Amino acid sequence: MSAPEIPPTHRDLLDASVATLATVGADGTPQLTEVWFLVEDGTIGISLNTTRQKTKNLRANPACTFFVLDLANPARYLEIRATAEITPDAGRRFATKVGAKYDTDLSVHDAPGDERVVVRIVPRRVNAVDMSA
Amino acid sequence: MSAPEIPPTHRDLLDASVATLATVGADGTPQLTEVWFLVEDGTIGISLNTTRQKTKNLRANPACTFFVLDLANPARYLEIRATAEITPDAGRRFATKVGAKYDTDLSVHDAPGDERVVVRIVPRRVNAVDMSA
Repeated sequence: MSAPEIPPTHRDLLDASVATLATVGADGTPQLTEVWFLVEDGTIGISLNTTRQKTKNLRANPACTFFVLDLANPARYLEIRATAEITPDAGRRFATKVGAKYDTDLSVHDAPGDERVVVRIVPRRVNAVDMSA
Repeated sequence: MSAPEIPPTHRDLLDASVATLATVGADGTPQLTEVWFLVEDGTIGISLNTTRQKTKNLRANPACTFFVLDLANPARYLEIRATAEITPDAGRRFATKVGAKYDTDLSVHDAPGDERVVVRIVPRRVNAVDMSA
């Protein structure tokens, strides 16, 4: 079974620096935040601190949407409806890779004892939109 | 009862041309699309065609999130978790106002016989974020 493809017209959006991650809270309301991400072997991964509400939301309900807006032309965007696969980030290896991409140390955002997980975005449906086309 | 306030630091984002509207589909997955909007008397309104999936989602579950990214600084954004209040757009008066804002005629996006509703964003929680501050 293959994942839905991102069309060539919108693949550049995976080079964006940030994306919007939408999860669903316990009360059924979407929660949207901007996140850093890393694409490895065609898979989108996000490093999340387990104390964050979005991580709690994903653990309770892994349905999520990864959304990238073209900042230069916000009529163009990529919406990936997905299931989150959450795994422990053993030795913080993934957080270190994400930090290297952004030239920072993700642990500055963590309190002592905080843990991180790797969230893989497993696409179920891809909508590539360009209202300006 | 007063609605949660948008802090002065982020009120300029309501001057943006587009926002992201997140609804929740029948399968529990967020749906995100870019939308035009109009602020009247401090209330955010969106004109939606009733045939659209987001309109169907909102009718089934009015919990939604209105999200505006600062295109010049995507570390800054405004997330409004809200309830959608949906009313008929009698005489298409609201669609006409939105069209005037964007210097277009919204009916070009409608098929013959399509109807439009006014979706008012009633805030329940406002998160004004600036990771760059």
